[in-house]
Amino acid sequence: MKIITISREFGSGGRELGKRLADLTGWDYYDKEIITAIADNKNLDEGYVSRMLENHGWKNVPLSFRNSFAAAAPSMQTVLLVEQKQVIEKIAREGKDFVIVGRNADVLLQEYHPFSIFVCADMETKVRRCVEYASENEKLSRKEMERKIRNIDKNRFHAREILTESKWGDREAYHLVVNTTDWDIKELTSAVKAYADCWFQRKY
Amino acid sequence: MKIITISREFGSGGRELGKRLADLTGWDYYDKEIITAIADNKNLDEGYVSRMLENHGWKNVPLSFRNSFAAAAPSMQTVLLVEQKQVIEKIAREGKDFVIVGRNADVLLQEYHPFSIFVCADMETKVRRCVEYASENEKLSRKEMERKIRNIDKNRFHAREILTESKWGDREAYHLVVNTTDWDIKELTSAVKAYADCWFQRKY
Repeated sequence: MKIITISREFGSGGRELGKRLADLTGWDYYDKEIITAIADNKNLDEGYVSRMLENHGWKNVPLSFRNSFAAAAPSMQTVLLVEQKQVIEKIAREGKDFVIVGRNADVLLQEYHPFSIFVCADMETKVRRCVEYASENEKLSRKEMERKIRNIDKNRFHAREILTESKWGDREAYHLVVNTTDWDIKELTSAVKAYADCWFQRKY
Repeated sequence: MKIITISREFGSGGRELGKRLADLTGWDYYDKEIITAIADNKNLDEGYVSRMLENHGWKNVPLSFRNSFAAAAPSMQTVLLVEQKQVIEKIAREGKDFVIVGRNADVLLQEYHPFSIFVCADMETKVRRCVEYASENEKLSRKEMERKIRNIDKNRFHAREILTESKWGDREAYHLVVNTTDWDIKELTSAVKAYADCWFQRKY
């Protein structure tokens, strides 16, 4: 079974790269689908699950949180994290190749030896992308957009720090760090697929 | 003209990757050749030039050095840096495709839009590699080898900080960050070449 995991800076195009990689390889694709599955399993609202587990859910969680997994009365966040872990492991146990975006899946799926990618871009590229994809009622200035990007990434850094021993965005924590600056994501997808093909075919 | 520049952590196999990329593409290869050319042009000893410009030459140079390029009486290090810049620019002006390792060539050759790679590996891989390649009279313990690796990389970080506006090893400063851990460099070379081919063929 082949797994590609994608971690990414907000606005870098990592999600699009993941989706296109899945299209190009014909593999399954998981991203928001995980949140839907957790919400279904726990009979909770998707928006609530997303808020608890994604970009803004980690702001006020102390680093000591990792230990609280062992606590007698687990918090809702812990319950959802355990459920997330189970959902992702269940997907892996199905044995089909897949691409998964976010959720520190590279660490959760370590035993399956996924090919792990981190996607970044320079700030200008990220702001341009975010402005392009912003909904009508989310008109932010360039400065505000930059602040939003930095905040979300700080949160992802913090969440990974709490949940894993591996550092978010650290070059040595991933197999490949891809910079989407000056690339069309579609063309980049072919490059990443070619690289990943060599990885999965290697004999070493 | 196509240029690939390689920056790398000491012991990561970046030089071998560069050499193999040049072999695989049939492009010219530059590394120590630059030092030889500078020594020839300036009628100096190669070992001396290497010591001044490479791993250990930057330990005691203050950050304010960048300004000293404009100083009335340039230091020998400045003279050699200017010569290095000229040697590298002369190579580029020849118009032939090439691979170049080290020397912050990605920044020096910015106007030629090189494809820039940073090569890293986990400490275990780097130590193993360094022990394997160590000469008979350089038997270091694991701890000593780790210290040596960290020192050389600290020096490279410092040199780039002095000479450029770009941060050594920063994921956003390069087009691709390649982790050689768990790869045979020969197999990795095919992966990097496939990725670089897509980069040079892109229409965007």
